[in-house]
Amino acid sequence: MGNSKLKIFIPHFYLVWSDDLLTQKEFLTLQKFILSQAWLSVEEQKELISKLDTKSPPSRAQLNDWKSQIETVLKENNSIKSIFEMSLVLSGSDSLMKDLRTDFIKLENDLGISGVEIIGDLKIAENTLTSSYKGVTTFEIEKLTKILDGEQALIINKVKSIISRPEFAYETSTDINIYRNKVYKWCKILAKENLGNMAYPKEYGGGDNIAAYFAIMETLSYHDLSLVIKFGVQFGLWGMSVHSLGTEKHYAKYLKDIGSLKLPGCFAMTETNHGSNVKGLETTATYNHEEQTFTIHTPHQKAQKEYIGNAAVHGQMATVFAKLIIGGIDYGVNAFIVPIRDKNSHILKGITINDCGRKMGLNGVDNGTINFDQVVIPKENMLDRFASVNEKGEFESPIPSDNRRFFTMLGTLVGGRIGIPRSALAAAKSGLTIAIKYSDKRRQFGPEGGSEVPILNYRIHQRRLLPKLAKTYAIHFALQYVTSRFMARSESEMPEIEALAAGMKAYSTWNTTAVLQECREACGGKAYLWENRIDALKNDTEVYTTFEGDNTVLMQLVAKNRLSEFRKAFGQMDAKGMIQYVYENAKTVISEKNPIATRNTDEAHLQDDKFHLSAFQYREKTTLASAAKRLKKLIDSGLAPYDAFNVVQHQMIDVTQAYLERIVLEQFQIAIASIKDPNSKTVMVKLCQLYALSQIEINKGWYLEDGYMEAVKTKAIRKMVNQLCWNLRPEAVSLVEAFNIPDSCLSAPIAF
Amino acid sequence: MGNSKLKIFIPHFYLVWSDDLLTQKEFLTLQKFILSQAWLSVEEQKELISKLDTKSPPSRAQLNDWKSQIETVLKENNSIKSIFEMSLVLSGSDSLMKDLRTDFIKLENDLGISGVEIIGDLKIAENTLTSSYKGVTTFEIEKLTKILDGEQALIINKVKSIISRPEFAYETSTDINIYRNKVYKWCKILAKENLGNMAYPKEYGGGDNIAAYFAIMETLSYHDLSLVIKFGVQFGLWGMSVHSLGTEKHYAKYLKDIGSLKLPGCFAMTETNHGSNVKGLETTATYNHEEQTFTIHTPHQKAQKEYIGNAAVHGQMATVFAKLIIGGIDYGVNAFIVPIRDKNSHILKGITINDCGRKMGLNGVDNGTINFDQVVIPKENMLDRFASVNEKGEFESPIPSDNRRFFTMLGTLVGGRIGIPRSALAAAKSGLTIAIKYSDKRRQFGPEGGSEVPILNYRIHQRRLLPKLAKTYAIHFALQYVTSRFMARSESEMPEIEALAAGMKAYSTWNTTAVLQECREACGGKAYLWENRIDALKNDTEVYTTFEGDNTVLMQLVAKNRLSEFRKAFGQMDAKGMIQYVYENAKTVISEKNPIATRNTDEAHLQDDKFHLSAFQYREKTTLASAAKRLKKLIDSGLAPYDAFNVVQHQMIDVTQAYLERIVLEQFQIAIASIKDPNSKTVMVKLCQLYALSQIEINKGWYLEDGYMEAVKTKAIRKMVNQLCWNLRPEAVSLVEAFNIPDSCLSAPIAF
Repeated sequence: MGNSKLKIFIPHFYLVWSDDLLTQKEFLTLQKFILSQAWLSVEEQKELISKLDTKSPPSRAQLNDWKSQIETVLKENNSIKSIFEMSLVLSGSDSLMKDLRTDFIKLENDLGISGVEIIGDLKIAENTLTSSYKGVTTFEIEKLTKILDGEQALIINKVKSIISRPEFAYETSTDINIYRNKVYKWCKILAKENLGNMAYPKEYGGGDNIAAYFAIMETLSYHDLSLVIKFGVQFGLWGMSVHSLGTEKHYAKYLKDIGSLKLPGCFAMTETNHGSNVKGLETTATYNHEEQTFTIHTPHQKAQKEYIGNAAVHGQMATVFAKLIIGGIDYGVNAFIVPIRDKNSHILKGITINDCGRKMGLNGVDNGTINFDQVVIPKENMLDRFASVNEKGEFESPIPSDNRRFFTMLGTLVGGRIGIPRSALAAAKSGLTIAIKYSDKRRQFGPEGGSEVPILNYRIHQRRLLPKLAKTYAIHFALQYVTSRFMARSESEMPEIEALAAGMKAYSTWNTTAVLQECREACGGKAYLWENRIDALKNDTEVYTTFEGDNTVLMQLVAKNRLSEFRKAFGQMDAKGMIQYVYENAKTVISEKNPIATRNTDEAHLQDDKFHLSAFQYREKTTLASAAKRLKKLIDSGLAPYDAFNVVQHQMIDVTQAYLERIVLEQFQIAIASIKDPNSKTVMVKLCQLYALSQIEINKGWYLEDGYMEAVKTKAIRKMVNQLCWNLRPEAVSLVEAFNIPDSCLSAPIAF
Repeated sequence: MGNSKLKIFIPHFYLVWSDDLLTQKEFLTLQKFILSQAWLSVEEQKELISKLDTKSPPSRAQLNDWKSQIETVLKENNSIKSIFEMSLVLSGSDSLMKDLRTDFIKLENDLGISGVEIIGDLKIAENTLTSSYKGVTTFEIEKLTKILDGEQALIINKVKSIISRPEFAYETSTDINIYRNKVYKWCKILAKENLGNMAYPKEYGGGDNIAAYFAIMETLSYHDLSLVIKFGVQFGLWGMSVHSLGTEKHYAKYLKDIGSLKLPGCFAMTETNHGSNVKGLETTATYNHEEQTFTIHTPHQKAQKEYIGNAAVHGQMATVFAKLIIGGIDYGVNAFIVPIRDKNSHILKGITINDCGRKMGLNGVDNGTINFDQVVIPKENMLDRFASVNEKGEFESPIPSDNRRFFTMLGTLVGGRIGIPRSALAAAKSGLTIAIKYSDKRRQFGPEGGSEVPILNYRIHQRRLLPKLAKTYAIHFALQYVTSRFMARSESEMPEIEALAAGMKAYSTWNTTAVLQECREACGGKAYLWENRIDALKNDTEVYTTFEGDNTVLMQLVAKNRLSEFRKAFGQMDAKGMIQYVYENAKTVISEKNPIATRNTDEAHLQDDKFHLSAFQYREKTTLASAAKRLKKLIDSGLAPYDAFNVVQHQMIDVTQAYLERIVLEQFQIAIASIKDPNSKTVMVKLCQLYALSQIEINKGWYLEDGYMEAVKTKAIRKMVNQLCWNLRPEAVSLVEAFNIPDSCLSAPIAF
């Protein structure tokens, strides 16, 4: 450009030719603008316009020349904040030019290049805040691992060392038979190491240590999950059903062989037509007093046992749940030991077994259907702890109600609802370890001219993974609590503990599903490859939300338990009573629901664990009272209770969710209070804040509807969640390393 | 009980012995109560207390007797609403008894058996509202199918008839090689039917019909998704890259053979280190003027091409994206045709191909990595529509900016971002069809004594599936719109259309992931079995959120486009300008944000499509203006733009989400307006209301924070969503049948 004043247009020319967001329309805008500028001669206008002919674009060299002129100006004038300021310097900053400010600002607006960010995009970036951010650990990883492992550290380490052996290398064959046999072989090794019988009485070769058994289940879950489920079916479901529902004669006869895996067996409860509603099972066990036998029978195809683990290949016996019939009278569901295969693996007469075939995951477990055609078993095969047939052939039970007896039987099996959420927890930890370690190294995009940035430095990526890491830590401590409550249970606490376990089973398994989904997406195509393990983790745990009780059904059950407790505590509560219940402590009400509290956005307040717990407790109580009120209103208005419960199902889920979240937060806080190592404590406090605030953020609609918080506060909480994610990002890798998952178990190449 | 007055306790006895929620504590409560009742003689107290001895429970017969007495009373006295009223009748309703009301009510409260629902649980239920509810169709399914298929009905039906043939029976082998060959064979059949070349020019044997090509992709997606992706790789990515980036000489040489599948090929863009940030690709194509050749080279292991479909087994050529180097100068990423195998499938010299191996899904597609070791290709193999090397060996391009040229090249490939969301849509439809049809038949639980109820009658189950059905219908129409915009595109609309396609790709694929997750859980264990198809649908589409652009990255890109449009429209907007933008029409502001509107819970208002669209538009504008404002503030405060964009990433997602939802709702409403059949229209209006209101419900936190709605209104919306779900439940099966998916494609036994 001959006239140096014309250089005022360099930035515009450069931008219209290079920015992929500027279109044809902008060329016209710029042309018009040039023609409207009276200070330009016609010749100059022509020269300028010639540079905007899309049929004869500037050369690549010309474009690069403009670019380098711009970069030079920006380098020498660091304070430049608009295109016009840059244009001024380029054109020599003469006073005539300065008068053009208004026109040029308008042009910038019309072209959409008015933002300061446009300047940023043109600058060769030095290291920006985002690109230079990286991991720094403020705590000793081993100390945190010790805190997580707690009293079970010994057995955890033993299991880890076993599953790290070469013979536990993952099976790569897609042949279902090879895989199933490998898993079976692994189970035998574990049995030999006395891990399977850990929960059985010592007199039958066991370890008499249920707490250790749960720790084994959880630790095994860092490895192949088919192994865990096969292990759980054999030693947990099959073995514990004999132990919990049977009596001495059964223990003596079976427990040792079950614990050594000499006697592989099944837990045959679910039927095709009855999954959630197990009370409706249709298989029958008809007593024959003369023969002193029961006849087990499947009345129709859809009453067959389905999804039964160990059934398709390895199981030799099964605990079969069936309606006991004596003299034509139905005495409800009871459990019976039924042989299904002989020692040579031949299926016995009257038994038909079909393979469930390929599944979404857990293909190392041989699930099958079992059909009984008048199969006769001796009387002693009834698991008779809660009900029996006496010598006269009469039904006997200390629990007269069939319903209650059935639920008492189920209650003894609550262990499964502790083992599964703990297994799910381990899978979530594996997924997070893989995804976070990969995100710390994987680089993509970066500031203009700068190098690429680890994707974990992106706020949205932190948002995807770190609240989930916090929640997974929170669940760790909550499941420790559930386990300890279960270990120290008294009979009167059982309904509460059963509800707690059922609820936490849903909470933990849903968390795992969500965590692994996010890990899959966060790791992009790499996580789609089988070798990176997310595939197996995700598909194997997918059914965790279904088995041991469908999560949605469990959530309803827990809510019913909460309502029942609520009724016991408060009876026929009126509106006033409800309010009193919600604000049990009058002082708390006043301090929590006044405008100062509902609008309080002080950093210290937002990070205060007491504020968090109060908010969770308030939500728990309010959702419960409100569901109770609504139910009462519906039934009072004439709706059948069954229909009324249907109407409030959505609220019931809220009741349980709020209850569980209060428990989880409370237990996280209690666990933190007992941490002695100050550095571990500091990072755990931050994680706990992130858990609490990100849950409040998820529920902000509820808090705003209720008036417990106002918009200014929920917005401040969103910012605080962002900030906590940013602050925790440097610790993220160490936080997953504290899970201390064996490398051979992680195995994913992207995690190393 | 000798004294008939004692019968007053029958309900309590029955309940403490049978209700599984009552515990030890309640036995004690009841004992104490009995001892406190002065009207009972010591003998009577003893008799009563003897029935509460847990060591000597009542017999099962005794319990049944109590139960039948209770049932008789309830049958004869339908108005009974409390335990006490029942007790009164049982004990003979004498006046003494009536005086005990206060005491007994307190007892009921203490035992937690005070609710009316307790009575409901004791009644033998007739058919309740919930249990008698069932499917009724108010529209003709075929008419709705016609509306959905629109102009493409012919080709859709042709494809359906082809994929319903016996040779398209699903492959059941888990052997990856068998599966890959089956998929390849299927592709050949489709090529023979002239489906693959549908989008190519007629002169090269094609159908010159891009709209039909998209319809084919979508319809094929009712079948195996490996087939769709293999088909898309060959005819879409490989063929269209030649067509879009090459010139006549390439068309003449390749297109016919590509369309007939005589020449299988690949689209080799992604590298291990560069997935989302494709501008950073590292493969080089170095020009040699003397030889008139390019040398394609992989500079290091992590610059290898990865995940390339057709690479591991079948591909003979590939469109390779590489940085063009001439005389040591880097001219940015360009595309080249590179032979990788000879006709006998032998890998050519200099080429190393590795198999990506087993994946989470799409195992019928042979993805591989490709490594180039100084591979020489002739000059004519450069796809030279947008850039070329002239006779003098100089670089030439009508687009001088490397950046812009690259994005222009990518822009021509936008078709993939229409094909994939449409394929995802079909998969969501398949999942919903299976889940809804199963839920309509699957029965579980029911009122006491009544028969079991189809699970779709449960409100929570409706909540899980029906809003997702509504959203899937909404997306159907939105993708029709995207397709038609693409078909009628002008150059100046391209940035908008690209953003729209990128955004809808994310919106539709995320919907599919969520839909299939819900379908899996909603169908319980059945959906875990491979035979029921949810497995394949879910795992095959899992990577849809990643390929053709990672969804999270696309969301950011779309938001940047929105911000750029916003800046063009409003320039350096001040706070006042922002407000004006949000409330473009001043009258709307007044009517929308006054207390009458923010609290309006009239049914007609809540169902009003104008209210819905206004709410969506308001959110779209507000999130955009607010993100722009925040960005400006951050940059003004001195943050580097790159860092500022990082800080607002979370808001950027909101911007795009709100934009897409407005588009989706708007297009659903526009499509409905043109429906002529009144019955189809009526049901579509309900579905559209459900889509709109359930999205508002999801975003209620935002609306409350903003003050656009108050709590009373968001609560009313939640109720309305419940009500719409209930109202649509009878039509649900017909609504999925209108998708008209071939039975052989659905194939899931639970859907029949």
